[in-house]
Amino acid sequence: MQIVFLLYNGMTALDLIGPHEILCRLPGAKIQRAAERPGLIHTDSGLMLNAEYTLSNISHADILVIPGAGNATTLRKTPKTLEWIRSIHATTTWTTSVCTGSLILGAAGILSGLRATTHWAAFDRLEYWGAQPTHGRIVEDGRVITAAGVSAGIDMALNLAIKVAGAQFAQAIQLGIEYDPEPPFDMGSFKKADSPIRNALQVRMAADFEPK
Amino acid sequence: MQIVFLLYNGMTALDLIGPHEILCRLPGAKIQRAAERPGLIHTDSGLMLNAEYTLSNISHADILVIPGAGNATTLRKTPKTLEWIRSIHATTTWTTSVCTGSLILGAAGILSGLRATTHWAAFDRLEYWGAQPTHGRIVEDGRVITAAGVSAGIDMALNLAIKVAGAQFAQAIQLGIEYDPEPPFDMGSFKKADSPIRNALQVRMAADFEPK
Repeated sequence: MQIVFLLYNGMTALDLIGPHEILCRLPGAKIQRAAERPGLIHTDSGLMLNAEYTLSNISHADILVIPGAGNATTLRKTPKTLEWIRSIHATTTWTTSVCTGSLILGAAGILSGLRATTHWAAFDRLEYWGAQPTHGRIVEDGRVITAAGVSAGIDMALNLAIKVAGAQFAQAIQLGIEYDPEPPFDMGSFKKADSPIRNALQVRMAADFEPK
Repeated sequence: MQIVFLLYNGMTALDLIGPHEILCRLPGAKIQRAAERPGLIHTDSGLMLNAEYTLSNISHADILVIPGAGNATTLRKTPKTLEWIRSIHATTTWTTSVCTGSLILGAAGILSGLRATTHWAAFDRLEYWGAQPTHGRIVEDGRVITAAGVSAGIDMALNLAIKVAGAQFAQAIQLGIEYDPEPPFDMGSFKKADSPIRNALQVRMAADFEPK
């Protein structure tokens, strides 16, 4: 099973590593980390990840994972990447995104008419790409699965593991990464968050987003 | 505030990236990713991370983070690394580990007499290093904080963010990474897991662990 992760400068590391840590444990998983130019990729937290593959050398994926970034949609200025995403999507069983990775799927024209989610602070931008913005930590429409912000990729990938390898296997993965979360606050999503904190953060994050 | 992450070949990527994604958002955070030899580090899932610093060039940390790995304690064969950990620990406000990273702290002699935790499958090995094995997703003893397996580093770092920057700031970080987890199964820890799955996994993981 070929699982392809798109890497690009400015991406958010956990958007990729969450699903990566889970999907690499699937039976027969062959993981490919691919970028327009292979080599070191700068994430938005300073950490550099290595992409071993060039996009143009990959023509198929069973599962495609697109991570997000504050400025995710700047990728639309690299039409070659969007074209690659479209061509890989034509071959996938599952096309997935984490956080604002869904805006990249949108820019590639893949979300047109589909229900989709993204990071809460970018939620209203989904409409611009023809998607139906849908609240939910994981939103599935056909073979396109979009996850909410950053950490939601972990839940998305575990749910995908159930589809691909069955509940028992997915349980073993969840136990293997000891995923029995104890977040210190019960306010990690838009609807649960304290308004002043949420509003301040939204203003700050909006500055990171490119204009539509 | 100087936050140092130890990188080494064979480490588990999410052990590092979970806390990294959170701690990099702390006010004034200066992150250093350090390894015995800088450059590309192979994680146990094939992903390569870059270490920009050489251990010998770092002599201080406010926060030290040690990720785990199946074969974490093989690091005890590189006494220079253990010596470095001891010398940095002498300067920290908080010394932390994720997963079997605590066995590395143990091998460095730092856990002697302290309450500590680790990945559930390695729990009984803590005693070998003189620690008091203590159940808990996060175990704090003095300025040493150990987290349970892999994903527990996220909760550990959010709790550390509360100590360092206050509850309101930590809430903003939690909301920023949209951490409102929805694990598919309520069995991500030793005590909640289904016994046959747990036993099979323990046998499989034990094979990864080095003998004491």
